[in-house]
Amino acid sequence: MNNDYLLSMRHSCEHVLHQALIKLFPQIIPAMGPATAEGFYIDFDPRKIKISEEDFTKIEREMKKIIDANLPIKKKEITVKEAREIFKDNPYKLEWLDQIEKKGQPVIIYYTGKDFYDLCSGPHLSSTGQIGPFKLLSVAGAYWHGDEKNKMLTRIYGTCFPSQKELNDYLKLIEEAKKRDHRKLGKELDLFVFSDLVGKGLPMLTAKGATIKRILERFIVDEEIKRGYQHVYTPYLAKVDLYRTSGHYPYYKDIMYPPMIVDKEELILRPMTCPHHFELFKSRPRSYQEMPIRYAEISPQFRYEKSGELTGLIRTRLFMLADAHIITPLNQAKEEIIKVLNLIDFVNQALGLKKQSDYRYRLSLGNRKDSQKYYKDDPAWDKAENILREVLKKISANFYEAPNEAAFYGPKIDVQLKNVLGKEETAFTVQYDFVMPKRFKLRFINQKGEEEEPVVIHRSSIGCLERTIAFLIEKYAGAFPLWLSPIQVAVLPISDKYFSYSHLIFEQLLKNNLRAEINTNNDTLGKKIRQSTLQKIPYMIIIGEKEYKKYQVDRSYYVSVRTREGKDLGMINLYEFIQNLKKQIETFL
Amino acid sequence: MNNDYLLSMRHSCEHVLHQALIKLFPQIIPAMGPATAEGFYIDFDPRKIKISEEDFTKIEREMKKIIDANLPIKKKEITVKEAREIFKDNPYKLEWLDQIEKKGQPVIIYYTGKDFYDLCSGPHLSSTGQIGPFKLLSVAGAYWHGDEKNKMLTRIYGTCFPSQKELNDYLKLIEEAKKRDHRKLGKELDLFVFSDLVGKGLPMLTAKGATIKRILERFIVDEEIKRGYQHVYTPYLAKVDLYRTSGHYPYYKDIMYPPMIVDKEELILRPMTCPHHFELFKSRPRSYQEMPIRYAEISPQFRYEKSGELTGLIRTRLFMLADAHIITPLNQAKEEIIKVLNLIDFVNQALGLKKQSDYRYRLSLGNRKDSQKYYKDDPAWDKAENILREVLKKISANFYEAPNEAAFYGPKIDVQLKNVLGKEETAFTVQYDFVMPKRFKLRFINQKGEEEEPVVIHRSSIGCLERTIAFLIEKYAGAFPLWLSPIQVAVLPISDKYFSYSHLIFEQLLKNNLRAEINTNNDTLGKKIRQSTLQKIPYMIIIGEKEYKKYQVDRSYYVSVRTREGKDLGMINLYEFIQNLKKQIETFL
Repeated sequence: MNNDYLLSMRHSCEHVLHQALIKLFPQIIPAMGPATAEGFYIDFDPRKIKISEEDFTKIEREMKKIIDANLPIKKKEITVKEAREIFKDNPYKLEWLDQIEKKGQPVIIYYTGKDFYDLCSGPHLSSTGQIGPFKLLSVAGAYWHGDEKNKMLTRIYGTCFPSQKELNDYLKLIEEAKKRDHRKLGKELDLFVFSDLVGKGLPMLTAKGATIKRILERFIVDEEIKRGYQHVYTPYLAKVDLYRTSGHYPYYKDIMYPPMIVDKEELILRPMTCPHHFELFKSRPRSYQEMPIRYAEISPQFRYEKSGELTGLIRTRLFMLADAHIITPLNQAKEEIIKVLNLIDFVNQALGLKKQSDYRYRLSLGNRKDSQKYYKDDPAWDKAENILREVLKKISANFYEAPNEAAFYGPKIDVQLKNVLGKEETAFTVQYDFVMPKRFKLRFINQKGEEEEPVVIHRSSIGCLERTIAFLIEKYAGAFPLWLSPIQVAVLPISDKYFSYSHLIFEQLLKNNLRAEINTNNDTLGKKIRQSTLQKIPYMIIIGEKEYKKYQVDRSYYVSVRTREGKDLGMINLYEFIQNLKKQIETFL
Repeated sequence: MNNDYLLSMRHSCEHVLHQALIKLFPQIIPAMGPATAEGFYIDFDPRKIKISEEDFTKIEREMKKIIDANLPIKKKEITVKEAREIFKDNPYKLEWLDQIEKKGQPVIIYYTGKDFYDLCSGPHLSSTGQIGPFKLLSVAGAYWHGDEKNKMLTRIYGTCFPSQKELNDYLKLIEEAKKRDHRKLGKELDLFVFSDLVGKGLPMLTAKGATIKRILERFIVDEEIKRGYQHVYTPYLAKVDLYRTSGHYPYYKDIMYPPMIVDKEELILRPMTCPHHFELFKSRPRSYQEMPIRYAEISPQFRYEKSGELTGLIRTRLFMLADAHIITPLNQAKEEIIKVLNLIDFVNQALGLKKQSDYRYRLSLGNRKDSQKYYKDDPAWDKAENILREVLKKISANFYEAPNEAAFYGPKIDVQLKNVLGKEETAFTVQYDFVMPKRFKLRFINQKGEEEEPVVIHRSSIGCLERTIAFLIEKYAGAFPLWLSPIQVAVLPISDKYFSYSHLIFEQLLKNNLRAEINTNNDTLGKKIRQSTLQKIPYMIIIGEKEYKKYQVDRSYYVSVRTREGKDLGMINLYEFIQNLKKQIETFL
């Protein structure tokens, strides 16, 4: 299916929604509304009117009328002055017009019929009748420009597809995604909470959520050390001068927290780790013999995100990145990048992700003409982009190129992951940097005894831990694989008669480094099983008369095991069971 | 020996130093000078004169004259006005006088002879002849009031003792302490570095230093989880309101970083973890069945320390505390405190510390009369202090009581550790808190179905990780026990002929989770051994013809082992060697 065609249809459908809303609620003031990769939405100032999902049937009926009328969608260019007259009662459109005028862009309006028009240059279909099956999805509050300081508008989400089947499939998908929403499951499974007194975008991980984080952290730290990384700890703040030296400050200022004056120093919370690692590198002279140096850190980073953009664990104001900076002689850069991609493959495999179907690579390139966004050095860009392209070809990777997506200091390879809705997101990146070595005057003594400038590879392996946890919650719908499950085994005695024997079993599990819990409430077995299943605990051990008898007769531990999927594994020797679990854990199952 | 007597002697000796300095360098302006637990020092404004350790002989000779003259040391009270006249040319003394006048204290000067006097109420000896053997030790810069914003003064340290033997013993001790200084060893062993661009008091741990930190961190996290703690992650900053609610803000404001305005929120870096843990507790209703709840966290904390007080890893502006807050019903508080003291004993044992000889307990009490420093609730203080006292008696602990040393929210048990100089410092504390539960309205449903207010126990187990690392560096003079050594085994091939066989050995060590390095430089074996010994690597494996032959004959790995102490352990089977090391590591050796 043609992507432009779908975007045009959704753009047009959004206008139909707009037109229908105006018809039904003339008081509202429309602000803006784009087509998206999944549908469309419109933001408007409700002006005391409360529009809820209960109004959707009425609105959809009105939209259907406009579509059935097959109105032509036309557009034309007008002057700013004319536009200002048309939209004189709409402060949002006037603000758009200011922007358009400032940038010297043409003012384009579209219209259907005589009395309906809006600022928009499309693309659109040529008439409303061509719009396929549509559906309104939800209503939410949204700050103007996503900024809490502005007015809260109302947003209506909807979507449309060329066929009813495609629409139905999509609706099923979002139904499933809602069930998997990590914010919902995070609450149900008691993984993380927020507090008004602590602040927005600052999640607190409970014991269970923290367990997942700790497992991921130890997993990646141990793996990276095995692969020759030096895991270090550097401070979470620094003098602003550090970011002036790196050149980050002008680019990142807006998403950094404000500086703090302490003594005579101007300190600031770090939004990235690279400058700290460069200072570590520079703490003594370096020889080719110790190169490449691979500094890694589970690095807390602080970024000011607008409150409207904060989303559970996905977008937070403090997160921990599995970060690393490889400082390497140019002639070893390719080899190092391949090693990084191998590590990412290994990590993805452990997380249950398949290459090709679940993720692929994007080669993000610079723009030689945009010297404001990108460091100006055309030959260096050419060389760097070629190195990354050659690497991707050498490993026969499935990749595509994306212009204008590089970092300011060089091109990068992005690992693009599909989320539950099938949408691609950048999970990890491997960035090639020829600018920082210059800015920080990084040097090593090469084999000829001369000073040489290295290049830097910025990379993440398992990404930002909070975001990876959110991704895993949604991928597994909370039913984590054994190695990541906060509680791996629940011990469920049928009645208090078996409590003390159950405790023996429980102790054995703990001794074997399994994360277990024991339920000694006086509930029925049915209720206990239900509770453990709701908590998505992979294995339940049930202890009743049969198991206890066996122990009384020959002092050997036997247990009946049930899975969270409801499968009965029958009575097994406890140590056999434990060995099986250990094997699963070792292979990331 | 009487402590007051020693203090009087040192106070008097400081005055003799003062008098000698004035005689030799009349231009200087003395600022202040106390007796300390280890000697005395004087701070003065050098006014362009540079006094160095080369001047010590001359100064000591002058001091000796004053002592030999056996001048009487007298004191008398004068009026503020008289004092202002006497010290009219000394801005530092005038500042002292302001303070004295503000507090309404008497103005006391001492004098020896006619022309030498200073502001000081003693205690002093009655004449200079009674001062025992003394020595000047070092000279350093020191900001007035320890504040970088003030002028840099010169500080001379010295000490004196009743006998020459005691002085000599002390001098030997500080000689040893200098060798063990963690800042010196930290550099030599490449454990941590500082950077001007990053900022003061913000150490960066290299791979080796980070290894020690990671081992301690995992050790304590695993042990605490085993003992029923919930290890959580909470954010490193919060709204200032959180600390207003806790009541910390007025007490801690001066040592907190300044607030940052983000969106409309006033955020601040946290100087402690308790309020975050209380918010976690309050995220849902709690029943007696899940109590006590023990929240633990390896918690980064930010405190603004004056630059003059920053010391290596001991005093930093960001540190990680092994923190925990036990929220417990009152009737389980004693039991919980005993469990905490047991944990601390276990930790201390792992760190090689012996109860009684290396550490003891201090019961730090409040002051019913000081309601500014301590929360006002006399019966609650009585009860709390009794509970702690009973606990210490119950475990037959060696403890002493210290009035006026409590936290503002309740009394505490301090674990007092002796450092290399034999000086006692508070390493860990166990605090009993009856105030925060009220401030945060902490509640649980008790067995009667009623709301009940718990008490909170604030505690650390292994303390602040940076400071504990500094302590361990000094305790072991860098020769860490095997389990804490950044590199545990160095593989040293005698020549390049044995490189590939040595690599096989090296791989086996890594596979067995030992931290190893291999030295394939073309240096002599002697040099390689020297380097590894200087790096204090516990074991060196030497690979030469004999070991290689053995491998060629029967394919079994044999290695010759040498310790950092220079002991030759002879040729051993590699796996036997590995098993021995593993056993040592398991028992914290």
